[in-house]
Amino acid sequence: MGSKKQKYVYFFGGGKAEGNESMKNLLGGKGANLAEMAGHPSLKLPVPPGFTITTEVCICYYKNKKNYPKGLKEEVDKAMGRVEKLMNKKFGDPSNPLLVSVRSGARKSMPGMMETVLNVGLTEKTIPGLVKLTGNERFVYDAYRRLIMMYSDVVMEKAAGIEPQEGKGIRRQLEGIMDGIKKEKGYKTDTELTVGDLKKICASFKVRIKEVLKKSFPDDPQEQLWGGIGAVFASWNGKRAISYRRIEGIPDEWGTAVNVQTMVFGNMGNDSATGVAFTRDPGNGEDKFYGEYLINAQGEDVVAGIRTPGPINKESRGEHNKDLKTLEEVMPKVYKELFGYQKRLEKHYHDMQDIEFTIEKGRLFMLQCRIGKRNGPAAIRIAVDMVKEKLIAKEQAVTRVTPAQLDELLHPMVDPKAEKTSKIIAKGLPAGPGGGVGMAVFTADDAERWAKDGKKVILVREETSPEDVHGMHSSQAVLTSKGGMTSHAALVARGWGKCCIVGCSAIHIEEGTKRFKVDDTIVKEGDWITLNGTKGNIYVGKLPLVEPDIEHDVYFRNFMKICDEVRKLRIRTNADRPDDASIARRFGAEGIGLCRTEHMFFDPARIKSMRKMIVADTKEDREKALAELLPYQKEDFAGILKAMEGLPVIIRLLDPPLHEFLPQEEGKKKDLAKDLGISLEKLESRIQKLHELNPMLGLRGCRLGITFPEITRMQVQAVFEAAAELTLKKIKVFPEVMVPLVGTQAEIKNQYDIIKAKAEEVQKRYKVKLHYMIGTMIEIPRAALTADKIAEVAEFFSFGTNDLTQMTFGYSRDDIGGFLPNYLEQKILPKDPFQTIDREGVGQLIALGIERGRSTRPGLEVGICGEHGGDPDSVKFCHKVGMDYVSCSPYRVPIARLAAAQAVVESKKK
Amino acid sequence: MGSKKQKYVYFFGGGKAEGNESMKNLLGGKGANLAEMAGHPSLKLPVPPGFTITTEVCICYYKNKKNYPKGLKEEVDKAMGRVEKLMNKKFGDPSNPLLVSVRSGARKSMPGMMETVLNVGLTEKTIPGLVKLTGNERFVYDAYRRLIMMYSDVVMEKAAGIEPQEGKGIRRQLEGIMDGIKKEKGYKTDTELTVGDLKKICASFKVRIKEVLKKSFPDDPQEQLWGGIGAVFASWNGKRAISYRRIEGIPDEWGTAVNVQTMVFGNMGNDSATGVAFTRDPGNGEDKFYGEYLINAQGEDVVAGIRTPGPINKESRGEHNKDLKTLEEVMPKVYKELFGYQKRLEKHYHDMQDIEFTIEKGRLFMLQCRIGKRNGPAAIRIAVDMVKEKLIAKEQAVTRVTPAQLDELLHPMVDPKAEKTSKIIAKGLPAGPGGGVGMAVFTADDAERWAKDGKKVILVREETSPEDVHGMHSSQAVLTSKGGMTSHAALVARGWGKCCIVGCSAIHIEEGTKRFKVDDTIVKEGDWITLNGTKGNIYVGKLPLVEPDIEHDVYFRNFMKICDEVRKLRIRTNADRPDDASIARRFGAEGIGLCRTEHMFFDPARIKSMRKMIVADTKEDREKALAELLPYQKEDFAGILKAMEGLPVIIRLLDPPLHEFLPQEEGKKKDLAKDLGISLEKLESRIQKLHELNPMLGLRGCRLGITFPEITRMQVQAVFEAAAELTLKKIKVFPEVMVPLVGTQAEIKNQYDIIKAKAEEVQKRYKVKLHYMIGTMIEIPRAALTADKIAEVAEFFSFGTNDLTQMTFGYSRDDIGGFLPNYLEQKILPKDPFQTIDREGVGQLIALGIERGRSTRPGLEVGICGEHGGDPDSVKFCHKVGMDYVSCSPYRVPIARLAAAQAVVESKKK
Repeated sequence: MGSKKQKYVYFFGGGKAEGNESMKNLLGGKGANLAEMAGHPSLKLPVPPGFTITTEVCICYYKNKKNYPKGLKEEVDKAMGRVEKLMNKKFGDPSNPLLVSVRSGARKSMPGMMETVLNVGLTEKTIPGLVKLTGNERFVYDAYRRLIMMYSDVVMEKAAGIEPQEGKGIRRQLEGIMDGIKKEKGYKTDTELTVGDLKKICASFKVRIKEVLKKSFPDDPQEQLWGGIGAVFASWNGKRAISYRRIEGIPDEWGTAVNVQTMVFGNMGNDSATGVAFTRDPGNGEDKFYGEYLINAQGEDVVAGIRTPGPINKESRGEHNKDLKTLEEVMPKVYKELFGYQKRLEKHYHDMQDIEFTIEKGRLFMLQCRIGKRNGPAAIRIAVDMVKEKLIAKEQAVTRVTPAQLDELLHPMVDPKAEKTSKIIAKGLPAGPGGGVGMAVFTADDAERWAKDGKKVILVREETSPEDVHGMHSSQAVLTSKGGMTSHAALVARGWGKCCIVGCSAIHIEEGTKRFKVDDTIVKEGDWITLNGTKGNIYVGKLPLVEPDIEHDVYFRNFMKICDEVRKLRIRTNADRPDDASIARRFGAEGIGLCRTEHMFFDPARIKSMRKMIVADTKEDREKALAELLPYQKEDFAGILKAMEGLPVIIRLLDPPLHEFLPQEEGKKKDLAKDLGISLEKLESRIQKLHELNPMLGLRGCRLGITFPEITRMQVQAVFEAAAELTLKKIKVFPEVMVPLVGTQAEIKNQYDIIKAKAEEVQKRYKVKLHYMIGTMIEIPRAALTADKIAEVAEFFSFGTNDLTQMTFGYSRDDIGGFLPNYLEQKILPKDPFQTIDREGVGQLIALGIERGRSTRPGLEVGICGEHGGDPDSVKFCHKVGMDYVSCSPYRVPIARLAAAQAVVESKKK
Repeated sequence: MGSKKQKYVYFFGGGKAEGNESMKNLLGGKGANLAEMAGHPSLKLPVPPGFTITTEVCICYYKNKKNYPKGLKEEVDKAMGRVEKLMNKKFGDPSNPLLVSVRSGARKSMPGMMETVLNVGLTEKTIPGLVKLTGNERFVYDAYRRLIMMYSDVVMEKAAGIEPQEGKGIRRQLEGIMDGIKKEKGYKTDTELTVGDLKKICASFKVRIKEVLKKSFPDDPQEQLWGGIGAVFASWNGKRAISYRRIEGIPDEWGTAVNVQTMVFGNMGNDSATGVAFTRDPGNGEDKFYGEYLINAQGEDVVAGIRTPGPINKESRGEHNKDLKTLEEVMPKVYKELFGYQKRLEKHYHDMQDIEFTIEKGRLFMLQCRIGKRNGPAAIRIAVDMVKEKLIAKEQAVTRVTPAQLDELLHPMVDPKAEKTSKIIAKGLPAGPGGGVGMAVFTADDAERWAKDGKKVILVREETSPEDVHGMHSSQAVLTSKGGMTSHAALVARGWGKCCIVGCSAIHIEEGTKRFKVDDTIVKEGDWITLNGTKGNIYVGKLPLVEPDIEHDVYFRNFMKICDEVRKLRIRTNADRPDDASIARRFGAEGIGLCRTEHMFFDPARIKSMRKMIVADTKEDREKALAELLPYQKEDFAGILKAMEGLPVIIRLLDPPLHEFLPQEEGKKKDLAKDLGISLEKLESRIQKLHELNPMLGLRGCRLGITFPEITRMQVQAVFEAAAELTLKKIKVFPEVMVPLVGTQAEIKNQYDIIKAKAEEVQKRYKVKLHYMIGTMIEIPRAALTADKIAEVAEFFSFGTNDLTQMTFGYSRDDIGGFLPNYLEQKILPKDPFQTIDREGVGQLIALGIERGRSTRPGLEVGICGEHGGDPDSVKFCHKVGMDYVSCSPYRVPIARLAAAQAVVESKKK
C-alpha cells in the first residue's frame, strides 16, 4: 500500500462520523449511508455506533496475499474503544457486554451475495451479563445458537477450505441436530424450543463443529470479530459474488468494505421497542407521520405478524389497531425525538423516508432510513405536494412517480385485499392493464348478445381475429390462450384501455362445449371469472374492483401539468375512431400519430364492399367496389379530423394483407359469393390466390397501393374531400397522409405522386387551400438505411417499430410465443423487444434513420407510432434520439407524458 | 465562345485525321472512332472521308440562341473541299456528284435517340449524274425518295415547329402515298416498285410536302446539308433524347457532334461489293479471318437475306455457301488489302473486330469497325489465344468473357437454330440454366416411376416441396407455375445444375386430369415439352439439345486458370451431398461454404426419425429420435468431409421451421401416427401446434437449437465424431460448424458453448486434435448491426443474403410474386434483389457487418453463402467489401471464379 499513511477505519456514532454519503467508493454504500445519518450536521441521528473498514483494505488484502495492512488492528481497536465509550458497554465484558454485527458493503448493493455475522461478542463469559441485561435467557441462547450456526458456516468451514458436498455442509448438519430435538419433542416450530432445549443445542453444536471442522468454536470475542471481518473479505471472491459481478458488470477491483456496528435490542423489556415508520402515508401520500411499533420486540417480530403492532400516533391508527396504544402515548419523549428525526430526514433527503428504529431501554436508535415505497396515488400526491412545499423542483417531481404507479390510476383494479385471499388459477401475459370481472363466454356473438341482455362478460378465445372485434368491445375483458403482447387481442384491448390477458397457455379451451379447463378446474359458459390484466392473473369467481376517478383527481391533473412543463416530446395518440380520439384528447393527446384505416372496414355495412374490392378480378370491378367504400371512408375521416380540430392527424393508407379481410367461415363465404354473383368455387380460388406463406412479408403496405393505385386514390380522395368540406365549415384540420411499409425511394415517390395529384384535384374542385403533408412509415430496415433518399420525397417520418422490430430481429410477432418465453428465461433477450425498443439493434436503425432523414430534409418531423410509443423506456429512447413526438393508444397518453418528462431529466443527468 | 480562335471542324480521310480516339468529348464517340481509323499511324484505313463538327458547336449553338458560331461555314466548306478532292467528286456536281450522310454522335452512344439524314446532295440536278455512275436508275430514285421522306420528317417538319398528332406526321402521310401506289398495283413489298413508280412517288411527295409544310423540298445541296446539321443539333433537345439522358444520367451540357461523311455505294456494278467480316471466327474463336460479301449490293442487302452472301475466303466457307466464289477469288487485290487492314485492326484494338466494308468501283472503303460479338466458346478461346499471342494481359483476358458466355459452356443448351423456328408457348423465370427435353409428368412419384422405366420426363408442378425432391432428381427439368427465383424448385434445381423454369403463371395445371393448359394449347401427361432454362422459354415438342464437354475443353480449363491467377476471392460451394461436393471440386471449388443438414433428412429411412423427433412431446422422446438420426448424420458428414479432404467444410446446423418436415398427406400422417403409437387426432394436434403464421420469422435457425439444445448436441456430435474418425484414418478434415439465424450475441454464445463442449468431449474420447471453427450466419439485420458483439464469440461469418434480403426489404421470397413483376416493370426495383445484391440497402448492412465484425476480431474470415454467391454482380460486390470467399452451387463455381477475377480488374480501374 506504499509508505503514505492511509486511514483504514472510519468511525460513526454519537452525532459524529468520519465519512459521509459521498464516500461510497471508499466506505461502500452501507458504510457511507450510516456515516451520513450519523454525522451530517443536518441529521446527526442516533444510529448504533460502529465503524467501517474501507474497501481499500479489501483491495490491499487481496494484493498482499490475504494479509491485512499494518496498523489496521490498532485502528480497529481505537474505533471499538470509541463505540464502547458511546454505548457505555465493553466488547467481551462479562457483565455489560457490547455485541456487534459484521456486515459487508460494496459500492453497489450485491444483495445476499456476501456474508454477515450477527451477535459477535457473545461467548460463554458474556452470556450471563446479557441475560441479566435482557432478563430473557431464551432470547440470549437463541442469539447464541444463531451466532454458532452462522459463524461455523460463514467463517470456520470456509476458512478450513472445506468444500462440502451439496447438503452436507456444517450448517446443514447443525440444522439436523436442531431438527432432531424438535422431532424428539414433537415441536413444529423453532419458537417452541425452550431455554433448556437451546442450551442443549448450543452444546451439541460445539461438539459437532469440533468433530467436523477439527477446530473449536471460538469463545474469544476478538477471534470472533476478526474471523467475521476475514469472512466478509473472503466472500468478495466467493463463487456467488463473482458470478453476480459478471452479470451486473461490477469490476472485481472495487472490493467490499466491512461494517462493524453495535447490536441494539428492542426486546430488553417494556422500556424497549422496535418499529417502522414513513414520513408520509405511503397509501395515499398524505403529509402525516405514519408507522407501527411493538413494545419489547425485535425487528423481525413486526414483520412476522404474530403480535399486532400498535400505531405510532393517532394519525396512523386504523381499523385493525384502533384499540392499541400509540407510541406517542406510551413513550411521549421518545416519540417526540423520533418525530423530529423524521422531519430532518425528509428535509435532508427531499423525499419520503422509510425508517427503522429500535428503542433499547428508553434509548432511541435509528437503524436505517431509505426512500419509502408508495403506491401510485401516494407517489403522485407526494410529488405534487413537495413541489408546492418547495422541497423539490418540478424536474425532480416527475422522477418521483413511476409509469407503473401512474398506470394504477388509469384503470379499475382488482381489489388487492381480495386478491390476497384468492387463488390464481392461471397466469398469462398482461396485455391490457386493470381489472375485469365477468361471465365467461366463448364466441364474439355470444359476448355481444349477453352484453345486450345487460350481462357482464369476459370473452375467452384461443386467439382473436378482426371478426371478433364486436364481441371484444362488448366484453369487460378478454382472455386468450395463444398470442403474444402484440397479438390482435392485445393490440385491440390496449387501444381501448380494456383489461386483457393473452397467451395463457395453461387454459385449454373446448369451443364445442363452451368451457375451458385449467388442470382440474373447469370453467363453463356463464361462470364468473376475474382478470388482473396488470399482472396477468386469472381467478375463478367475482372479485371486487376498485374504480379510478382521474377526471376529478386534482393531484393527477396537477402532476400531469408538471410533466407537460418539463417534457419536450409531443404526445399523440393512435386512434381509429372519433370516440377514441376524444378520449385521447381528454388524456392530453396533441394530435393523432396513427389512424389505421383498415379497422374501419370491419363494420358489417362496409366489409362487404371491402371484400368485393379484394376479390375483384378486373380494375373496373375493383373501382366499383372502391366507389362504394368512398363515402364511408370520407365519413370516418371527417369524424376523426373534427374530433382533432386544430391538431395534426396522420392517416395511414391501407396496410394489412388483403386476405385478412376475407371471410373465414363457410357461411360468410357463401354469402359473399352470392353477393358477387360468382360461384363459391370461383370465390375460393380467388381467396386461394391471395394466400401467402408469410403474409407479414407479402403483398401489403404500399405494395398494395402501388399494385392497385386505385386503392390509394380512393383513400386520399376520402381524406382530402373530408378535409375540404370541414375547411369550408371553418373547422381547422391538418391531415397528414402516411404511406406504410416503404423500403425504397421509388415506392414513396410512386405513392407521393398519386396522393399529391389527388390533393391538387380536390383543392381545385372545392376551391380551398388545405394544410396537409405526405410522409411515410419507417418500418422496413432498408427504409432506415436509405432514409436520406426517402426523405427527399417524404415530408415526415413515423417509425413503425412493431414491423421494424419484426424485421430487424426476424421475429414474427404472431409466432414469437414459440421461443420468446424460453429466451427471456435464459436471458438471451433482456426484454420482449416488442414491448421495449431494443436499443442495441432496432435503436441503431432508428437513430440512423433520423440522422440520415434530416441530412437531406433538415427539420424533418419524426415520430413513432408503434406499440412502443406507450412504453416508458422506449419513450425515453425516442427523446434521446431527437424525435418530435411519440404516439400511443389513448390510455397510454398520460404514461407517455410522464415518460417524456422523465426523459428530459434523465438526459440532463448524463 | 470568347474571342480565342477555336477549331470547329475536324477532317478525316485519305490516311489523315485531325482528331483521334482520345477526343470523344469533343468529337463524340463516332467522330473520334472515324478519326482514329482514318488517321492513326498504325491504322490509316481507307474510311470514306468526311468531317466532324464538334460538340462545342452544339453547346455554343444552344447558348447563342440557336446561332452557329462565326467561321463555322468557312470551316465546313474547307473540309468539304478536302473531301471532294480525295473522292474526286463534287458536292452538287451534276455529272460526278458527291453524296454525304449527316449523323449525330454524342460522347456516349444514344442509339436511335437522335436524327440521321442519308444521301444528302441528291437533287434533280445530280440525279442524272448518279444514274450514269451507277447504271441503276431504280437505286437512285429509291435513294431519292428515302432522302425526301427522311428529310421532310427529320428536318422540315421539325423546323416548321409542327407537333403533329400521333400518326398524322408528314412521314406517315408520305408512307400513305406509297402504300396507295402499292395497293393500286397489287404489290406486296417495296422491292416490287419500278423506277416509274418511284419517280411518281417522289413527285407526289414533293407536292404533299408543299401542301402540308408550306415549303418546298429543297433542291439545293447546301440547303440540304445545313438543314441536316441543324436537325441533328435540334434533336439533341428532342423529347426522346432528353428523357433518355435522364434515365442514363447523361448531362444536358455535353451536346452532340455532327458527322458529315461521304456516301459510298457497293451497288455500282460488278466491280462493287459490300460485306461484313470478323477478325476471328465469332462462332468458335478460331484465329481465322471470317466474313461474307455480296457483289453489287448495299449493306442492307447482306442483312436482308434475299441473296446468299459469299464467303470472303475459303476459311469462311460453310455448308450454305460452299458453291459460291470467295472475295479472295473474285477480287484478289482488294481481298489482300482487306486482309491487311483486319490484321492491323486487331493489333491496334487488342480484340477481335467486327468490320463493315464497301467496295465502290474496285476501291475498298472501311465503313466501320467495332468489337465483335461472339458466343461463349469463341470468347473463351479468343481470350486464351490472345494471352498466348501476348496481345493482351491476363487481367484483360478475364474481362473478355461475360459470365453468361461462360455459363453457355456449362449446360446442355437447346439448339438455337431449332429455337428460331419453334413457337414459345409460355415464358417463366429462368431458374436453372440450360435446356431440358422430356415428357410432361405431374407428380414426383410419376416422375420417378417413368424415369425408372427409362423415360425422359419433365416434372410440372404448381410448386415443389421437399416431398417432391426424388421426382425432381429423376427429371430432365422442372417447370412450376408459381414461386420465384429462390423458390424451393429453383434452389434445388440450381444446386444440381438442372434446367428449371419457375413462376410460369401462364400455365394452368389441372392435377386431377394430369395436364396443363396455356391459352388453347393443352399438354397432357406424356406429351413432349422442351425448356430453355437460360431464357425461361417453354416449347411444345422435342427440340434438339447441344451438349457441352468442358472436361475435355482445353480452352475452358486454361481460361479458368487465368481467372484463378487474377482473382483474390476464394470460391467455395454450397453442397449437401458427397457427389455434389465432388462435382463442385471438379469445377474448382476450394471448400464448402454451406452444407445444409436439413436436406439430409428427406431420405425415406430418415424422415421417419426426423418426424418422430419433431412431434416428440418430451425431451426423452426427442432424444430417442435424435439418437436414431445420429448415425445417419455422421455418415453424411463423413462423406462430405472426405470428399472435401484438405479443404474447409462449413456445416450449418438445422435451420428450417420443423413443420416443413411433417407429412402433408393423410396417408403419410396415418403411417406416422401408427409409428409413434399415438392417435391421428393427437398427431394432428401436435402438427397444429407447430403451425406458424409467418414461419420465415418463427421458430427456426438457432432458435431451434436454443429451444431444443439436444438437436444441436446430436448434430455436432455427428460432425465431430465423423471428423475424429477420418482424422484417425489420416484424412485431413476441416469442419466448421455454422449457427444459423443469429441475431444477438447471447444466441451465438449459447450455441457456441454447446458446440465447444461437445467438440472437447469428442476429442478427448477419440484422443485426437481436430481443426475446427465455430461461426455464424449473418442473415438477420440485427446481426449485421451488432456484428462487433457477435464476432466476440463467432470465429467466422457467412452472410446469408437470402434471408438478409428478405428481412432488410421485408419481402418473403415465397410471396414476392404478388408484386415483384409489377415492381420490376415500373422500375420501382432495378433488379430482383434475390438475384443480385441490393447494394444500396442490403449491401450497406453487409459492409457494416464486415467492418464491425473485424473491429473486434481482426482477420475474421468472412464469406457469403446465399444464392447471390453465384451471381456475378454480387460476387464483385463481395470482392469490393473485402470478403474472403463466396460460396455458390457447384455449377456456378466457374462463373464465380470468373466474376471474382473480373472484380479485381474492375476495382483496379476505379
